[in-house]
Amino acid sequence: MRERLYSLLNGDGRAAMWYGRVMTALIVASLLPLCFKGSSPVLESIEYVCVLVFIADYLARWATADLKVGKGGLSFLIYPFTPMAIIDLLSILPVFNALNDALRTLRVLRLFRALRAFKLIRYSKSTSAIAAVFEKQREALLAVLCLAIGYILVSALAIFNVEPETFNTFFDAVYWAVVSLTTVGYGDLYPSSDVGRTIAMISSLMGVAVVALPSGIITAGMLDELRGGGISD
Amino acid sequence: MRERLYSLLNGDGRAAMWYGRVMTALIVASLLPLCFKGSSPVLESIEYVCVLVFIADYLARWATADLKVGKGGLSFLIYPFTPMAIIDLLSILPVFNALNDALRTLRVLRLFRALRAFKLIRYSKSTSAIAAVFEKQREALLAVLCLAIGYILVSALAIFNVEPETFNTFFDAVYWAVVSLTTVGYGDLYPSSDVGRTIAMISSLMGVAVVALPSGIITAGMLDELRGGGISD
Amino acid sequence: MRERLYSLLNGDGRAAMWYGRVMTALIVASLLPLCFKGSSPVLESIEYVCVLVFIADYLARWATADLKVGKGGLSFLIYPFTPMAIIDLLSILPVFNALNDALRTLRVLRLFRALRAFKLIRYSKSTSAIAAVFEKQREALLAVLCLAIGYILVSALAIFNVEPETFNTFFDAVYWAVVSLTTVGYGDLYPSSDVGRTIAMISSLMGVAVVALPSGIITAGMLDELRGGGISD
Amino acid sequence: MRERLYSLLNGDGRAAMWYGRVMTALIVASLLPLCFKGSSPVLESIEYVCVLVFIADYLARWATADLKVGKGGLSFLIYPFTPMAIIDLLSILPVFNALNDALRTLRVLRLFRALRAFKLIRYSKSTSAIAAVFEKQREALLAVLCLAIGYILVSALAIFNVEPETFNTFFDAVYWAVVSLTTVGYGDLYPSSDVGRTIAMISSLMGVAVVALPSGIITAGMLDELRGGGISD
Repeated sequence: MRERLYSLLNGDGRAAMWYGRVMTALIVASLLPLCFKGSSPVLESIEYVCVLVFIADYLARWATADLKVGKGGLSFLIYPFTPMAIIDLLSILPVFNALNDALRTLRVLRLFRALRAFKLIRYSKSTSAIAAVFEKQREALLAVLCLAIGYILVSALAIFNVEPETFNTFFDAVYWAVVSLTTVGYGDLYPSSDVGRTIAMISSLMGVAVVALPSGIITAGMLDELRGGGISD
Repeated sequence: MRERLYSLLNGDGRAAMWYGRVMTALIVASLLPLCFKGSSPVLESIEYVCVLVFIADYLARWATADLKVGKGGLSFLIYPFTPMAIIDLLSILPVFNALNDALRTLRVLRLFRALRAFKLIRYSKSTSAIAAVFEKQREALLAVLCLAIGYILVSALAIFNVEPETFNTFFDAVYWAVVSLTTVGYGDLYPSSDVGRTIAMISSLMGVAVVALPSGIITAGMLDELRGGGISD
Repeated sequence: MRERLYSLLNGDGRAAMWYGRVMTALIVASLLPLCFKGSSPVLESIEYVCVLVFIADYLARWATADLKVGKGGLSFLIYPFTPMAIIDLLSILPVFNALNDALRTLRVLRLFRALRAFKLIRYSKSTSAIAAVFEKQREALLAVLCLAIGYILVSALAIFNVEPETFNTFFDAVYWAVVSLTTVGYGDLYPSSDVGRTIAMISSLMGVAVVALPSGIITAGMLDELRGGGISD
Repeated sequence: MRERLYSLLNGDGRAAMWYGRVMTALIVASLLPLCFKGSSPVLESIEYVCVLVFIADYLARWATADLKVGKGGLSFLIYPFTPMAIIDLLSILPVFNALNDALRTLRVLRLFRALRAFKLIRYSKSTSAIAAVFEKQREALLAVLCLAIGYILVSALAIFNVEPETFNTFFDAVYWAVVSLTTVGYGDLYPSSDVGRTIAMISSLMGVAVVALPSGIITAGMLDELRGGGISD
């Protein structure tokens, strides 16, 4: 019985395929209420149905954790802390909070419900080649991320101390640095003094190199993938 | 007779080459009236001449569909649904609508006439190498497009629920997400709260990786093309 | 005598090297007056000295054109139409116009003087490897440029006809399309209607692919260059 | 004794590892006071402790310079001019200035303290692969930087002379050129005349190629690194 449940949730058979399709549709449906400002009985009932299914799915996955993780009874303790289980749990949790309608700050928690969309990755195969590239180059991409974060913090520190009249808090300076490094540049925050602009110029020019790094790493990984791992042999 | 018409439309001979050049000139000419706000007799007559020629071209291509598609009588039914035929038809259609001058909403339909420019692709050879790269990597690029759209929707959902005061509708949030992911960043819409800015930062940083993907795929395809397909062998 | 002049202008000897350095310094000096709004006697005298040297350089190069082009007497007719000679001439011309101080529109012509800086390319060697990549991939880059220009014109046509209230002239729409495609996005012009924003979104997303093309072509060329032309063999 | 000090500062042993970790923590701690506008006794004492440790670290490194540089007594003269020693010194210096609290312009000097963060590079290993790519391609990246700077100056010259009403000083024009070339585009400065916009368009389009160059160079270097230097053999 549990074996059949497991194969339904994780297998490749026809029933599992249909289960995946229904879940995908439910995930998309559950995101609908987030796209409207008000609330209507229809949207609310969609939400409650979806969450009930997700809770059942979560419990079913937990109940078959030993077949997935493969470490006997210990699996039931390990499973809730695997990345996918955490995402599943976070996508259900906001509803428990939503029962307590008085708190306005709950709106921020609704953010986690958006994570439901990432569940789609579990049910699609077209992204597996790209995921493989990210997986293989994970270490290099993490190093670039560290470098980028360090670079952002240094830029933010520099601009924050040079132009305190433009940037009220350090957070503002970090926001400016990220928006500049990624070359988005909304224009809501920008330096106005000459020293600040000089820092912005150096920051932007070096930012081109920092942005070129993930591009280079991903391209190299792509080529590696295309050649069937010929480079790493 | 139909064979000669077919070779004129699709062949490599001298007459076909000149027919292509005249059509290219007419397509460019037919776009001229779209570049001016008002309307003058000269622009209108240019438009009517061009459209008449395009209708003749469309009918001639349809009449020789069996030679192109090569499935006998069935070809005449299949041809109007091939991508190129649909573009051809859409580039003629707005004129029929234009006869009914009263409707102001027709202005949106004029947009389809801009598709005429894509007809140029049919008559140029310089873009064939680039088209080959896109063709070969079509699946990977489609997967990236799906990933990017999913990513945009998640970003839009997150920002829309965190900052409802900035984004009036979900469409506004999607527009913001696209403008941020592609790093255009006009600055007409941007988050103003700290939570919203945090989402914008995470979104922008991950966006760099998403934008690096098509770049990597196209570069890998370019190298493949340069080497004469040596990778895929 | 003319042979020695030729080797001074184009050779690799010590005198030629020093001549190159002095010319580089003069080019940089001649750009100084362009960096200030007003005019001072010092800046004006710098300008006149530089232009006199440039005229002498231009005439000397013309007088030794047969040794450079190598087509006998015909060389003197061909030389003024070679790209480098045209740049040299354009960098001298504005001064003749400057004698006629009354015309305000001359300010636009001063723009051509900025071309003097490109003369620096003639005297540097560090850019030759990069130039080789551009040279080899010239055809592909030209095809991309054509594609990008076509794409810009189509985007501009679409937005101009959908949002005539935002874009006064077709030129405005082209400017918007370029600023969006290159992801600069100043924010001085942006669509405000829903249809316009949809066009902006499609345009930006496809723009990512268009911008990825030169990146891919240049990277492929770089690799080719690094391997000593191994790909093209 | 000096040998043991040297191995503590530069070695691979357990003590050296812990010294590195403590220094990293101190560097991060020393950056904290820069993230707040006001000043508190806690932040000030953190700062003084950190600087005292950094001065001790600087002197200890100087005292063991002969073991590092390996040129006998001359090493003590060479060491203070090595890049890392200059960064170390600059990260201490502002404090000496800070003793003189009256000067407001000291705020600019605090900028150098941000350089402390770069010290982190000395103690991390994850960035070494990326550093190797930058090291190998240093010449090509420098050539691109020269090209980019030349390109920025030419763009700035052109726009400054065409639109003097928008750009007050040449510095403004350079700032605009950098923000445009790197495609940040804040929108605080942009051309408003048709000629200025034409220059902005040409500048942006060519900028795409200039920005693609470092990307291409870094990708080629990445591939080289992945293959274990197979290209350069």
